[in-house]
Amino acid sequence: MNKALESLALPGTPAGLYDPVRYALALGGKRLRPRLLLLTNGLCKGDPEQALPAAVAVELLHNFTLVHDDIMDRAETRRGKPSVYAKWNDASAILSGDVLFVLAIRQLNHFGTLEGDGHPDSSRLISLFLDTIQTVCDGQAMDMEFEERKVVAIHEYMEMIRAKTAALIRCSMEMGAFVAGVDDRTREQCGEIGMHAGLAFQIQDDLLDAIGASEHFGKKVGGDILEGKKTYLSIRAMERADDTDRLLLEEILGNSNAGESDILRVIRIYHDLGVIDDAITRINSHYNQAMEKLSLFEETSYRKEIKALFEKLKVREN
Amino acid sequence: MNKALESLALPGTPAGLYDPVRYALALGGKRLRPRLLLLTNGLCKGDPEQALPAAVAVELLHNFTLVHDDIMDRAETRRGKPSVYAKWNDASAILSGDVLFVLAIRQLNHFGTLEGDGHPDSSRLISLFLDTIQTVCDGQAMDMEFEERKVVAIHEYMEMIRAKTAALIRCSMEMGAFVAGVDDRTREQCGEIGMHAGLAFQIQDDLLDAIGASEHFGKKVGGDILEGKKTYLSIRAMERADDTDRLLLEEILGNSNAGESDILRVIRIYHDLGVIDDAITRINSHYNQAMEKLSLFEETSYRKEIKALFEKLKVREN
Repeated sequence: MNKALESLALPGTPAGLYDPVRYALALGGKRLRPRLLLLTNGLCKGDPEQALPAAVAVELLHNFTLVHDDIMDRAETRRGKPSVYAKWNDASAILSGDVLFVLAIRQLNHFGTLEGDGHPDSSRLISLFLDTIQTVCDGQAMDMEFEERKVVAIHEYMEMIRAKTAALIRCSMEMGAFVAGVDDRTREQCGEIGMHAGLAFQIQDDLLDAIGASEHFGKKVGGDILEGKKTYLSIRAMERADDTDRLLLEEILGNSNAGESDILRVIRIYHDLGVIDDAITRINSHYNQAMEKLSLFEETSYRKEIKALFEKLKVREN
Repeated sequence: MNKALESLALPGTPAGLYDPVRYALALGGKRLRPRLLLLTNGLCKGDPEQALPAAVAVELLHNFTLVHDDIMDRAETRRGKPSVYAKWNDASAILSGDVLFVLAIRQLNHFGTLEGDGHPDSSRLISLFLDTIQTVCDGQAMDMEFEERKVVAIHEYMEMIRAKTAALIRCSMEMGAFVAGVDDRTREQCGEIGMHAGLAFQIQDDLLDAIGASEHFGKKVGGDILEGKKTYLSIRAMERADDTDRLLLEEILGNSNAGESDILRVIRIYHDLGVIDDAITRINSHYNQAMEKLSLFEETSYRKEIKALFEKLKVREN
């Protein structure tokens, strides 16, 4: 995957544009989406080699969303390093994000330029991809809108993460299946596996922000609490809190002057109200649903690898 | 054209995303690019009705660049009204720009989803479009890089406006030709007409900023002088100035505290150094080259209309 990203042959100039693009791609990360795409392609008896441009596309798109989201969320670090806008400036981050978007679509459009039969229908592939990007933008807009609101219901939160996070993981698995040439029903089944994995992944991100090991996670524990982000934990806690706890939560959540003891107090409330346990149950439930749907596929090395990947994600600490 | 944009059927929510998208599209403007696309399609004996999605695509893309560029350039007004980031905020402008981009590609991808023969090859069309977008991003990066530099050569400036402004006008005319199904050489000829028109158009924008009628232009006269933008005028003037004029120019260009008399002093220098005349000559030369290449096409109502459009652009005051 990293080799494929390197082989993009990005121009050297204007350096103010392509240096940030290269930097964003070199920050690494789990490469979760392209891996899922390629493994799903194998699961569906495709030729992962042929699916590589689609895998590169989802990774480029993922990086596009990170570069732009970090500006919007004023997230100064990404994977333990300065985010693009923090290292350069807003303008460079906007523009390099735009170019990552161009590069992503180009990867998929590549299928349509191939001669001969047997290639995936690039128009349907691009169509699925564009729908997903728009959904991800919708999710980011909902997330930002939630920041302005005092109360967010858990079903609204689920709708938001379904759009902002799970849609692209869903799309990665659907595209892997699509490029393998399966029928719509099988593609849909792969998409549902990705959707459940994506929902679990995001709730787990919320959980790790509160109780994760900061040195691995690359950002400060309790960041969401200081920022007052609407997370699975904060929303559930506000639902269940009595008047005393609610007052305390309202005082600390989103208070950037809160100290470490305040953060610990909030996490304590999360524990006491059963919110941590509830999140863990929900995470496991979504991973289990993903596993169950996966078990309907024939037992192959690809199925085993996807299962192993989900097991590893389930116990991740960052 | 406006009807086609209205029929996009944008979702109502999240309002924080689609309100800015609707606002950007409703700001209007000359709709120059889609008009040129449709007229060129007619010039090449196509069916402009069939070319409509491509026309919508270039207008959406143009608006995407305006929404993002206005954030980068901190341009608070656009067509006499608050720009998207100024009316909402940076985050809404980044995100609504991204969605305009998605909508643009979707228009072109539409051709690939049509059943039966006789439709333009959507992959080649998207390929041309993506190359253009990347070129426009390169141009914007060059423009920003020039701001940091003391000296910019005129050939560098020409390369920048070729990318930032002329490439999309070129692309509009090429796409109109492409959808009409002409050979590569004819498409290329149409592209060159657009390229010359685009270069003329941008140098004219620089000129109008200095000597235009502000009430029509929708922005303050001399804005480029206050911002110290590298324009055709400022670059040529710095080339030709003697030490006294150069010192004065260096003092005023980019000095946001400069008053009206300082601006008039700079424009006076532009006149005295023959820079205004030089710009007018260059603008006319590019429009004339566009007209000459146009005259190689058969005389039709479309050719007349394109010619009339260029004549009108040539004498525009905003």
